[in-house]
Amino acid sequence: MTVQQLTFSQTTPDMLKCIQDCLDCHSICLNTATYCLQKGGHHAEPSHIKILMDCAQICQTAADFMLRGSELHREVCNVCADANERCADDCDRHSDNGSDAQMKACAETCRRCLESCRKMSGMA
Amino acid sequence: MTVQQLTFSQTTPDMLKCIQDCLDCHSICLNTATYCLQKGGHHAEPSHIKILMDCAQICQTAADFMLRGSELHREVCNVCADANERCADDCDRHSDNGSDAQMKACAETCRRCLESCRKMSGMA
Amino acid sequence: MTVQQLTFSQTTPDMLKCIQDCLDCHSICLNTATYCLQKGGHHAEPSHIKILMDCAQICQTAADFMLRGSELHREVCNVCADANERCADDCDRHSDNGSDAQMKACAETCRRCLESCRKMSGMA
Amino acid sequence: MTVQQLTFSQTTPDMLKCIQDCLDCHSICLNTATYCLQKGGHHAEPSHIKILMDCAQICQTAADFMLRGSELHREVCNVCADANERCADDCDRHSDNGSDAQMKACAETCRRCLESCRKMSGMA
Repeated sequence: MTVQQLTFSQTTPDMLKCIQDCLDCHSICLNTATYCLQKGGHHAEPSHIKILMDCAQICQTAADFMLRGSELHREVCNVCADANERCADDCDRHSDNGSDAQMKACAETCRRCLESCRKMSGMA
Repeated sequence: MTVQQLTFSQTTPDMLKCIQDCLDCHSICLNTATYCLQKGGHHAEPSHIKILMDCAQICQTAADFMLRGSELHREVCNVCADANERCADDCDRHSDNGSDAQMKACAETCRRCLESCRKMSGMA
Repeated sequence: MTVQQLTFSQTTPDMLKCIQDCLDCHSICLNTATYCLQKGGHHAEPSHIKILMDCAQICQTAADFMLRGSELHREVCNVCADANERCADDCDRHSDNGSDAQMKACAETCRRCLESCRKMSGMA
Repeated sequence: MTVQQLTFSQTTPDMLKCIQDCLDCHSICLNTATYCLQKGGHHAEPSHIKILMDCAQICQTAADFMLRGSELHREVCNVCADANERCADDCDRHSDNGSDAQMKACAETCRRCLESCRKMSGMA
């Protein structure tokens, strides 16, 4: 079951997609932070763990603003997109040239969220 | 795309289902709180809005503990199940005998999360 | 004990003040939402409860970005200030001409947070 | 200004102390996670960073349940106390025999929160 199949009030298809992308991005960033801590080495660099945690939290905040039907959701999506972009780039940097499946999946999920959030914030 | 299709480290199929159920329950409870505030009348009773907000927050917390691979996730899932049960019952009570689709969907989502969380907490 | 008396790494006095103001604002907004639901009438208008919940959540997010020492804290503080301003104005509107102590305290706490967040975001 | 000086509805002095202790513990745990990542070595062990993040999140959740006046706050405080205890013990273990001021302050803050949460949950 995906979030789109639930009954939601006051949302558009674009917003439902953005909520789903934010929840997916929140989930994989949080999970990837633990993965990176366990891998150690360059994966556990403080700046990398921090951007994963930042991205996880602002994705959750953006999803919640949309789920509440809040007027300020565009502004939050805009900051979320900035975090997505930094996090995707940082995941690429730590992907061992694309051979690390978790980092690759995390970067792709961040980029999907980035696209949805830019569209939602009216700045695509 | 559902959360199950993402690449996750250190999770079992049961845990992935529980994470998804928690994120769905978080989402619909937060959305339903806004729906109920707008409907007004008995839907907007303080105790009803509060249990929706409690359920939304503890679902998020439970999902995050599982996504981090935290040892305490069983205890959090156990409290989550208690919130799910109260929230489902309260949604039934406000469903106008099942004719309110949002309340019905919210109750069903809470019960699915309840079942997953009880199983996860080892108390099913 | 206040947050300022704790041992914190990588924070400035201005940032510690902003963290404290955000945590205070988070706390009073969440508490005020329950207060307003129980008062009912115009206090429980959906738009009022929603801005209280928005303000509570973005204050928490801003505090956490600063506590983590995150590079994006300025952007989050900027959105937080926008939410603070809307919430303060809405609390004034529901304060029964200043006679409602909870609404008055909430508006004042939002304005203190607004000032700190504008300063932190470099847009004061 | 501390949280106790704010105007709060439906709280007792014990609950206000517990809310403050939870917010302090949330704050120092989140800040200490970044501190430990930057110190590296044994400070950055995955299990240590995870318990700091667990403790930070459940403290926030417990504070929010109390601020909302939620019926389930006792259950959440009980799980919070368990996280506090584990986190305090783990901070002691990483305190270099008490010479690391941040770890020492974090352990003390966790123990203060533990005591408040046990009392709040009726299991002190």
